[in-house]
Amino acid sequence: MKNIVIIGGGTGTFTLLSGLRKFPTNNAVIVSTADDGGSTGRLREELGVIPPGDIRQCLVGLSYGDAILRDLFSYRFENGSLKGHAMGNILIAGLEKSTGSIEQAIAAAAKLLNVRGEVVPVTLHPTRLTATLEGGKQIVGEHNIDEPRHNGNLRVKSLRLDKPSPANPRALALIKKADAIVFGPGDLYTSTIPSLLVEGVGKAIAASAARKILVVNLMTKWGQTNGFKASDFARELQAYLAPAKLDMVIVNTQKPGTAVIARYQKEKAEFVEPDLDVLKTMGTAAAGAELVFAGTFEKNSADTLTRSMLRHDSDKLAKLIVEAV
Amino acid sequence: MKNIVIIGGGTGTFTLLSGLRKFPTNNAVIVSTADDGGSTGRLREELGVIPPGDIRQCLVGLSYGDAILRDLFSYRFENGSLKGHAMGNILIAGLEKSTGSIEQAIAAAAKLLNVRGEVVPVTLHPTRLTATLEGGKQIVGEHNIDEPRHNGNLRVKSLRLDKPSPANPRALALIKKADAIVFGPGDLYTSTIPSLLVEGVGKAIAASAARKILVVNLMTKWGQTNGFKASDFARELQAYLAPAKLDMVIVNTQKPGTAVIARYQKEKAEFVEPDLDVLKTMGTAAAGAELVFAGTFEKNSADTLTRSMLRHDSDKLAKLIVEAV
Repeated sequence: MKNIVIIGGGTGTFTLLSGLRKFPTNNAVIVSTADDGGSTGRLREELGVIPPGDIRQCLVGLSYGDAILRDLFSYRFENGSLKGHAMGNILIAGLEKSTGSIEQAIAAAAKLLNVRGEVVPVTLHPTRLTATLEGGKQIVGEHNIDEPRHNGNLRVKSLRLDKPSPANPRALALIKKADAIVFGPGDLYTSTIPSLLVEGVGKAIAASAARKILVVNLMTKWGQTNGFKASDFARELQAYLAPAKLDMVIVNTQKPGTAVIARYQKEKAEFVEPDLDVLKTMGTAAAGAELVFAGTFEKNSADTLTRSMLRHDSDKLAKLIVEAV
Repeated sequence: MKNIVIIGGGTGTFTLLSGLRKFPTNNAVIVSTADDGGSTGRLREELGVIPPGDIRQCLVGLSYGDAILRDLFSYRFENGSLKGHAMGNILIAGLEKSTGSIEQAIAAAAKLLNVRGEVVPVTLHPTRLTATLEGGKQIVGEHNIDEPRHNGNLRVKSLRLDKPSPANPRALALIKKADAIVFGPGDLYTSTIPSLLVEGVGKAIAASAARKILVVNLMTKWGQTNGFKASDFARELQAYLAPAKLDMVIVNTQKPGTAVIARYQKEKAEFVEPDLDVLKTMGTAAAGAELVFAGTFEKNSADTLTRSMLRHDSDKLAKLIVEAV
């Protein structure tokens, strides 16, 4: 069986897993530990735990267990002091506190959810992101980059972790035996790249024989990728990935409907232009396909973060990836 | 197999279950839904759920599952906005919200914990207790009776629920087929008697062929049972139980050590005198035995409620009950 390792976490990864789970592949996700927003950020801040949100979403994405438990993990409290917390976030945080280890916590949660596959935090300690914007302004904290209170038109010139963080050995082992390493879909600077900043990860990816595949996002994100075309995503990721080299870029070529585009405009987000011609000049294989899922997703009213309304068609996306390996 | 039904919840019931689980009996607990203190009270208030604390303790008491999950349910957060919450309380509340039903929530939690036996809330809605003290003062709320801010020397003259509350049919069914119904050990007015105030429960107990057994507490409790001897516990319970009649009273005859007695004095609690001679004149079988567990229990620093330091010897107590059936 082919080993597919996703570097991500969050809604984009969840979508991809929804498709991959239908194929006979070994699926694993390496998640960033830099998240400090929303329910996850509060738990991290108050309890000192590894940010549980991405871990939870990926575990549910890989779960073959009872619907009751999957619903429980995804349930978000709507009232009182627990308002906005996903139940699964509290549960993973509670398991980390009661077992004393995030890895034991994930193992226990995975058993509850009957997970097939692996979810591995890229480090065994929470990390803190700092972005330097064009002009030199520094933004500290994943959440402040993700939901900017600064001028979100400014590009992220560089991204770093506040402290050197050694990789979780299990993450490196997954990368080593991977047949494909998939980056995205997901927030480029707050979900995908943070894992590449961890000591040893870049080297392991460069040493791995895996095909390195980028799934370009459907829409840009204000404060991160505004004005980005598909080739900009590839160029930017490649810069953080060197000396490893991207082997393939998967690009959506289907423009969503005007109503959806209009709603995204409120968040200053735009359709990512599939500039396949430019990608070709970069020496990376590029696959264009119509990848927009025919439907939209509404966010839970208790959720304090902005989530994508538009998703990749998980089946089509998974098929492209499996065929590429 | 004999069916043993405990009317209680809380630490005393947990202790009894620790002993009963070693016998080949069907064990079930009917728990009050009047609790409104501590972690449980906050969840009830904020989320409108059935008070989960007693349910959690009983499920763990009946669990034959992974130690990791039992520890998770019992884990109490020590920091931040979750401070003082038992993880299992949040989990049961989350299950009630996500499944929409406390009975589905208990079934799911019981499955997680590999529970043998049943835990059944006496009503399917939260209830509110009001105590009338001697002199006429009314105290509203279980927590205010349990940890009095009034003069705790005043006796509880009567206890009622604020609204007529029909019994959970499953509780009545358990009572009907019981071979023994055990009251206590536990707080008389805030744990044991509240279930007897629910519509249909008294009648069902009176109609049941089960032996009705009271386990008298080891120590009195300020605000509830100060000055009570064993016979006072029996007399008071009997008053709420009529027309059903207590068949047997189990009384501890072993006075704890002076150090323990001194610590309880700070809470204005005293050793319950085993006045077996008086009990005999009441026409109820009384069994006296040395039932103090050789050890003490320290409370979790994050716990906001007073818990008993002294416990019954669970094995001896369970043996007495099983032999009596």
